[in-house]
Amino acid sequence: MIIKNADKPVLILDVNRCKRNIERIAAKAELHNCEFRPHFKTHQSKIIGRWFRESGVTGITVSSPEMAHYFAEDGWDDITIAFPFYTAQLKKLKELEKLCKLRLFVTSEKDLAILDKELNNPFTFMIEVDSGYGRSGLPYTDKEYINSLIESSKSLDSNMFKGFYIHDGRTYSARNKNEIISAIQPSLYALEDLKKHFPEAKISIGDTPSATVLDNLDFADEITPGNLVFFDWMQVQIGSCSVNDVSLFAQLPIAQNKPNNKNVIIHGGAVHLSKDFIEKDGDKNFGQVVNYFQNGKIEPIEKSWLTALSQEHGTLNNLPTDAKDYITVIPIHSCLTANLFDHYITTDGQRIEKRVLS
Amino acid sequence: MIIKNADKPVLILDVNRCKRNIERIAAKAELHNCEFRPHFKTHQSKIIGRWFRESGVTGITVSSPEMAHYFAEDGWDDITIAFPFYTAQLKKLKELEKLCKLRLFVTSEKDLAILDKELNNPFTFMIEVDSGYGRSGLPYTDKEYINSLIESSKSLDSNMFKGFYIHDGRTYSARNKNEIISAIQPSLYALEDLKKHFPEAKISIGDTPSATVLDNLDFADEITPGNLVFFDWMQVQIGSCSVNDVSLFAQLPIAQNKPNNKNVIIHGGAVHLSKDFIEKDGDKNFGQVVNYFQNGKIEPIEKSWLTALSQEHGTLNNLPTDAKDYITVIPIHSCLTANLFDHYITTDGQRIEKRVLS
Repeated sequence: MIIKNADKPVLILDVNRCKRNIERIAAKAELHNCEFRPHFKTHQSKIIGRWFRESGVTGITVSSPEMAHYFAEDGWDDITIAFPFYTAQLKKLKELEKLCKLRLFVTSEKDLAILDKELNNPFTFMIEVDSGYGRSGLPYTDKEYINSLIESSKSLDSNMFKGFYIHDGRTYSARNKNEIISAIQPSLYALEDLKKHFPEAKISIGDTPSATVLDNLDFADEITPGNLVFFDWMQVQIGSCSVNDVSLFAQLPIAQNKPNNKNVIIHGGAVHLSKDFIEKDGDKNFGQVVNYFQNGKIEPIEKSWLTALSQEHGTLNNLPTDAKDYITVIPIHSCLTANLFDHYITTDGQRIEKRVLS
Repeated sequence: MIIKNADKPVLILDVNRCKRNIERIAAKAELHNCEFRPHFKTHQSKIIGRWFRESGVTGITVSSPEMAHYFAEDGWDDITIAFPFYTAQLKKLKELEKLCKLRLFVTSEKDLAILDKELNNPFTFMIEVDSGYGRSGLPYTDKEYINSLIESSKSLDSNMFKGFYIHDGRTYSARNKNEIISAIQPSLYALEDLKKHFPEAKISIGDTPSATVLDNLDFADEITPGNLVFFDWMQVQIGSCSVNDVSLFAQLPIAQNKPNNKNVIIHGGAVHLSKDFIEKDGDKNFGQVVNYFQNGKIEPIEKSWLTALSQEHGTLNNLPTDAKDYITVIPIHSCLTANLFDHYITTDGQRIEKRVLS
C-alpha cells in the first residue's frame, strides 16, 4: 500500500475491493431482475469502466455529454446522460449519437420536439421526478404535465419514453439502515403512484444508499448508483458499506510535525480532497485517518482526522503513533476527491489513467 | 460578457479588472517600499503571470514544486515555495534549481542540513511562523528553537536565512476594515517581537485582506497575496474589495426551470465551483448571482444565490427576471474555482490557458 517517497498527495485504489464492490452489486441487481446501469461520474476511468463490463454491465450513466464521449470512445454504446437536457448541448449530442445510443433526461415538450428534430438517430428519454428532495426533476405530483410530456413523445416515436428516474439525496442524511429505508419512502411512494398511472414506465433509482442497503430491489427496474465503486467515509457513516469495503484512499505526506503531534500539517488540501466534510458533535471531519495493514484490512484511527483544509494544507488533530512520512485517509466524498486527480495508483503500484477536468 | 450557446460552465475573466487589481497592489507595495511577491496558486496561468511581470514583479510565490516548475518554464527565476519543505520533495527541487533560484520554507535543522547537502546551488529559506492561526509555521514564541535554526543556517551559508513569513487566515473571518486590523494584530505583534530578536530578518505577509485593506504596509518588507488577482464573494464580504473589483465569474447554463422560478437547476456543481460556501443568517451561499452590464459594471442580485451544490448540479433559489439561458455567478473562493478549470475565457472571447491539476 505504501507509495514510497511520494512527493505529493497520491490517490490509492485497492483494486480487489473495487472489483468486489462492482461484482456484489451486479449480482444483487441480477438476483432481483433489476438492470444495473452504473453512474461513471465517480471513477471517470475507462480502465475501471471495463471492470463493470466484465461483470455484465452493458448500459452506463454519466452526467455530461463530454463524459459520455469519453466512455463512448471505449466502446460503451448505451449511455444515459443523467442531467437535465438543455438546448446548448445539441451540438455535442449530434456528435455523440454517431458513437452510441443516447438516453436523455427531458423536462419539457419543447425540448423533446427540438431533440426529435435535430438528432438523426432514435433516442430515448427518462423523466426525472422529484418527490421532495428539491434538486432536479419534475414534481411527481404534476401528473398532468408529465402525462402531456409522455403523450407528446408518442406522436414522435412510441418507444421514445422509457420511464422515471429518481435520485433522492435525502438518503445521504441517514445514519443506519432504518433511516435509509425511512428516507427513501417518499420516493418509493411517488414511484408506486406514478407506476399506477403510467404502467409501461420503467423505474430507475439513482442513490447509492438505497441500492446497497435495501434487501429488496423489486420496486425498481434499474439502479444507477456510482459512489459504490469506491465508497467513502460518508457512506461508512450512512451505513451503505463497512469500512473494509472502501476502495479509495489518499496517501498524504506529512509536511510539518508540530509540538506534541497536535495540529500536524499535511500535504493534502481542498485541491486534493475537496471541501466536503462531515460534522459530528460540532467537529468537522475533512478526511478520516486509517491504518492500512499488510493483509489489506483497514482500521480507522478514532481520534485522528483532518480538521481543516486550505488550498494545499491539511490540518491533522492527532498524528497516529506509527505515522512517519505520510498518513492514509479515507476521503469524505470519493466522487469529488477522484475528480481532482488525473490518475489512480493501485496498491501494487500500477498507474490507472482517468479523465481530467474540462 | 455573454459566451453564446455555452454547453457547459465557463470560467470568465475580466482582463481589465484583473490587470487593474495587479497594478493597484503593485503600486501600493512600491509606495510603501515593500516587495510584492504574489502567490500564483490562485490563477495558475503563465499568461496571467506575465501581466504581473509587466507591473514590475520579479519574484513569485507558489505552493508546490510542480507549480514552481510550471512558472520557471516561463522564465520566472526567483520562486518561493510557500509550503513546509519535506524530504520527499528533494528530487523535484534538484530539477527545479537548474531553472530558478529557490526560496524554501524550512521547519527543522535536520531538513536544512539535508537541503544544504543535496542541492547544488545556493538557496534561501524563510521561517514560517504561527501567531495563533494554527496552520503551518513554528510557534513564534519558541524563540529558542527559531534561534538555533537560524544559527545552524549561518554555519552553512550566512546569507541563507531571509526572514519570517506569516499567513494569518484569521483575517478571512473579518467583515470590515476594523475587523481585519483587529484580526491581524496578533501577527503584527508577533512579527514586531521577532524583529527585535532577529533584526536582520525580512518580514513577509501572506493574506490578501491585510495586503489590500491596511493603509500602511510599513510593518512588512514583503507581501505575497494571491487571491487579489481575481477576488471573490468571500473577499467582498470581508471588505478586501468592492464588487466591481472582482474579475472572475462563472457563466452557468440553466438546466431546468422549475415552477415559479424557485429552486431552478443550474449546470454548475462542486466540480466547477468547489464546495466552499459562506453562511449568513443560517443560509448557505455557494455562489452569488450578479448582473453583468454592457458597460462592465456588476450588480449582485440580492435574493439570488446558489443554495446547494452536488457534483454537477447547482440549485438556485430565485431566477433573475431577465435570465434566459444562463446565470453569472461570483465564486465564493476564486482560488478553488479556478483550480477546477484548465482555461479562462476573457470577456471578449479569448481563451487563456492555465495549469491543469496533477
